[in-house]
Amino acid sequence: MLNNGVFIGRFQPIHLGHLEAIKFALTCVKDLTIVIGSAQKSHELRNPFTSGERIEMIRSSLKELKISIERVTLIPVPDVDIHYLWTYNLDLLIPKYQVVFTNDPFTSLLFAERGTKVIQPPLIKRTDLSATEVRNRIVNDRYWKKLVTLSTYKIIKKIDGTKRLKTLNLKHHEKLDSH
Amino acid sequence: MLNNGVFIGRFQPIHLGHLEAIKFALTCVKDLTIVIGSAQKSHELRNPFTSGERIEMIRSSLKELKISIERVTLIPVPDVDIHYLWTYNLDLLIPKYQVVFTNDPFTSLLFAERGTKVIQPPLIKRTDLSATEVRNRIVNDRYWKKLVTLSTYKIIKKIDGTKRLKTLNLKHHEKLDSH
Amino acid sequence: MLNNGVFIGRFQPIHLGHLEAIKFALTCVKDLTIVIGSAQKSHELRNPFTSGERIEMIRSSLKELKISIERVTLIPVPDVDIHYLWTYNLDLLIPKYQVVFTNDPFTSLLFAERGTKVIQPPLIKRTDLSATEVRNRIVNDRYWKKLVTLSTYKIIKKIDGTKRLKTLNLKHHEKLDSH
Amino acid sequence: MLNNGVFIGRFQPIHLGHLEAIKFALTCVKDLTIVIGSAQKSHELRNPFTSGERIEMIRSSLKELKISIERVTLIPVPDVDIHYLWTYNLDLLIPKYQVVFTNDPFTSLLFAERGTKVIQPPLIKRTDLSATEVRNRIVNDRYWKKLVTLSTYKIIKKIDGTKRLKTLNLKHHEKLDSH
Amino acid sequence: MLNNGVFIGRFQPIHLGHLEAIKFALTCVKDLTIVIGSAQKSHELRNPFTSGERIEMIRSSLKELKISIERVTLIPVPDVDIHYLWTYNLDLLIPKYQVVFTNDPFTSLLFAERGTKVIQPPLIKRTDLSATEVRNRIVNDRYWKKLVTLSTYKIIKKIDGTKRLKTLNLKHHEKLDSH
Amino acid sequence: MLNNGVFIGRFQPIHLGHLEAIKFALTCVKDLTIVIGSAQKSHELRNPFTSGERIEMIRSSLKELKISIERVTLIPVPDVDIHYLWTYNLDLLIPKYQVVFTNDPFTSLLFAERGTKVIQPPLIKRTDLSATEVRNRIVNDRYWKKLVTLSTYKIIKKIDGTKRLKTLNLKHHEKLDSH
Repeated sequence: MLNNGVFIGRFQPIHLGHLEAIKFALTCVKDLTIVIGSAQKSHELRNPFTSGERIEMIRSSLKELKISIERVTLIPVPDVDIHYLWTYNLDLLIPKYQVVFTNDPFTSLLFAERGTKVIQPPLIKRTDLSATEVRNRIVNDRYWKKLVTLSTYKIIKKIDGTKRLKTLNLKHHEKLDSH
Repeated sequence: MLNNGVFIGRFQPIHLGHLEAIKFALTCVKDLTIVIGSAQKSHELRNPFTSGERIEMIRSSLKELKISIERVTLIPVPDVDIHYLWTYNLDLLIPKYQVVFTNDPFTSLLFAERGTKVIQPPLIKRTDLSATEVRNRIVNDRYWKKLVTLSTYKIIKKIDGTKRLKTLNLKHHEKLDSH
Repeated sequence: MLNNGVFIGRFQPIHLGHLEAIKFALTCVKDLTIVIGSAQKSHELRNPFTSGERIEMIRSSLKELKISIERVTLIPVPDVDIHYLWTYNLDLLIPKYQVVFTNDPFTSLLFAERGTKVIQPPLIKRTDLSATEVRNRIVNDRYWKKLVTLSTYKIIKKIDGTKRLKTLNLKHHEKLDSH
Repeated sequence: MLNNGVFIGRFQPIHLGHLEAIKFALTCVKDLTIVIGSAQKSHELRNPFTSGERIEMIRSSLKELKISIERVTLIPVPDVDIHYLWTYNLDLLIPKYQVVFTNDPFTSLLFAERGTKVIQPPLIKRTDLSATEVRNRIVNDRYWKKLVTLSTYKIIKKIDGTKRLKTLNLKHHEKLDSH
Repeated sequence: MLNNGVFIGRFQPIHLGHLEAIKFALTCVKDLTIVIGSAQKSHELRNPFTSGERIEMIRSSLKELKISIERVTLIPVPDVDIHYLWTYNLDLLIPKYQVVFTNDPFTSLLFAERGTKVIQPPLIKRTDLSATEVRNRIVNDRYWKKLVTLSTYKIIKKIDGTKRLKTLNLKHHEKLDSH
Repeated sequence: MLNNGVFIGRFQPIHLGHLEAIKFALTCVKDLTIVIGSAQKSHELRNPFTSGERIEMIRSSLKELKISIERVTLIPVPDVDIHYLWTYNLDLLIPKYQVVFTNDPFTSLLFAERGTKVIQPPLIKRTDLSATEVRNRIVNDRYWKKLVTLSTYKIIKKIDGTKRLKTLNLKHHEKLDSH
């Protein structure tokens, strides 16, 4: 078992697929840093929730599923304008790690070009379990409650995330039309 | 007891005074967010250590002193160029909080102007126990081991922090001379 | 009647619909701050004019329509990368206000989440009277003179805005093709 | 008489010397753009007031002294990291101008290297009438009321500027000591 | 013959059309500055190669074609957020020039608005010879070797540019789908 | 003999000591990238000259001393806010290198922490031959002509660098006083 690993996601919002992958990662490493990517983004259709809101969702989901939170460090990491520097900026912000967990081919490429070990966590039922799917269902008033934990569901309700997502959807399409 | 509080510091490096204050804060709130300020800074005389290094020091110090790490969330927060926006940027990055713990008059002022509750943790033996003092002693080869936890001491030794601090000290004074 | 209000627009370019809405706002507040949004942008298809050019158009339009310019303050405000911070950055840059005038749902959302009062000015003949429509007509050599004040028309002619818009239109479509 | 001129200052805070110079400038040009420099700065010892607070002080001072406000446009302009680009960024943000009013040798140099006409307004009683002097007196509880207009005095009192300046002064000196 | 000219391109990657145009420019001026635009960009579908990789390709191509490299200065220039400032930022970074060589209408517009002389180098066989075409062929495993110099071909092979471009292509289309 | 090396300096301005060190570096490597650091800075007392001006001085000095310019690539590199990322940003901007030539302890530290080979070029007559000394002499009207090449001397005269430096010196000291 390795000492430290890093799990990278945007968690817009965190869903059950993320949580399965985090459980898997915790079988591989003793301490896991969960990186909340695009931390500076919020109030966009693809990034509706703030970093603070996402941290609340992740922490309460880990507790709900009794995942050992004392082995996890949550770190919000902003994007950098210069893609090439993203992994080096990560090194600056988080504790040293021996392995990266990600299913994103672009993130994998950046680490592979540096020679860092990348593990792809096994994916379960991917068609339903993506954050894009959750956001789409919220926008279109379709059933989404079972794609996330109960605590995530409650937080989104409390901050009126449905209204926010619908407004952002409106804005997104208006912009395209107005060109 | 309040639900959430935030403790703000730069932790360059974390010393026993910080840890006393964190213990105090954990008697006031159930969950505590520890904000690692000036997260983007490192390799400067006043900010020698990276955010990743500081997180390692803080986590291992909390474990060493058996402070309940599952009640703590560590969040690195970069400076923003615009002072006025600093507290709002904080709101974006961290979970909601009801109280701020800080001894810094400037940070207090920013929160006070917004009407946020600020508590000043009691300070112990301040003359010795400041990060400035720790850095000064390292630079000048004076005894500093007892101002920090053993785990912090070991991390600084492992990354050869003494050499780094001496080089930064050299650079800092050279710059002043060359004006 | 409230003391201060803020009217938010990009004014690319200012058209008669904007001016009606400004007149309406001036019936609600004694002093009105007009915020010229996306102030740093120019030479883009959706943002062809510089902040300086837009200020000249707005000032001369207000004078032409004898709108009481001494009750108005024009403030160019740049975008901020972090959406969440936009309204707080506004607070930093402009005098205190009690109400916001805007028809944009996204801007309304940001202020509503903070609890700021938002008034939607009544819209007149919206199909014709949008800045997008003005820009489209200029690009396609259709009649646009009557959608703006005479002074705005003259300024756009003087700076050869037609040529600029056509070049930007060319660039915009070339970019899409080249993907 | 020229059509447009620009008057550049930081106005931290606006004092009677600024206002004399503005009156002088209005005898030279028909329309005057007053640039509020370092607009993004506040809560620093040299830049205590926000752009919004400074605009309120300037507007109310112009009204108090019955300076024809309809001939004046107030524009906050942020610093740019790259000194060389400052004057070009100004051109982007403000209406075209034929002359610059400033007593600052560095600003003069930047415009002179581009060939722009610079006029130095006559200075009155400079020893007393500088913003540095006003700030120093506030910090040290010395008499400063007569260096500014009554409306500026009232605004600084209303926002508790004295407390803010004293805290900033504390912070400034602490920082220097801690090196 | 003029003393200095500037040739502007992104060189993603440099192809034989660029090199013909550079030869043409060297018949017009004694010294030529080649500006590598969007220097900070890499690892994007439209900008796959780093500035360092592009410099290697350009230098080795010039040597391969025996173009007099001692008359050429290569300068990477990052984009600036504010379009209007791009040409002024260029002035800051590169030696003085009397003429600009470019076929891009937008770049031409920016220089024309300042009154700078622009020459459009004659284009040869444009359908094949564009960087977009080279990138498309690499992504789609079509023949591209003869569109570039042998040294450029070798560098792209050495850094496994084909794999990088295919991953970037995947990412680019995934993003569009996920909206 | 190694293939590629990088020589790092700010060249404010280039002096005979720099040129000796460059000659030395060219005995160690076949191709040399000269990095012009703090490229975005100019019009400051420590950084008076623009990147473009510095490139002209370096190129003409290399020609004057008949140093083989075809083996040299000049690359302006801006500072990055985050010190830790500086060497990685360098990797992005310049061709691959096997060795770094520098006498600066801080730059050496950053490369040493990454395991990059650093060579310190032998220094000649250091007391006289520093850029700080050249700038001081220009400001104080002392003899400086023999510390630089004739071509550098002529360029500084042509752009009236003496006046610029004296104004910057004035500004620098005024700022300190005004605190």
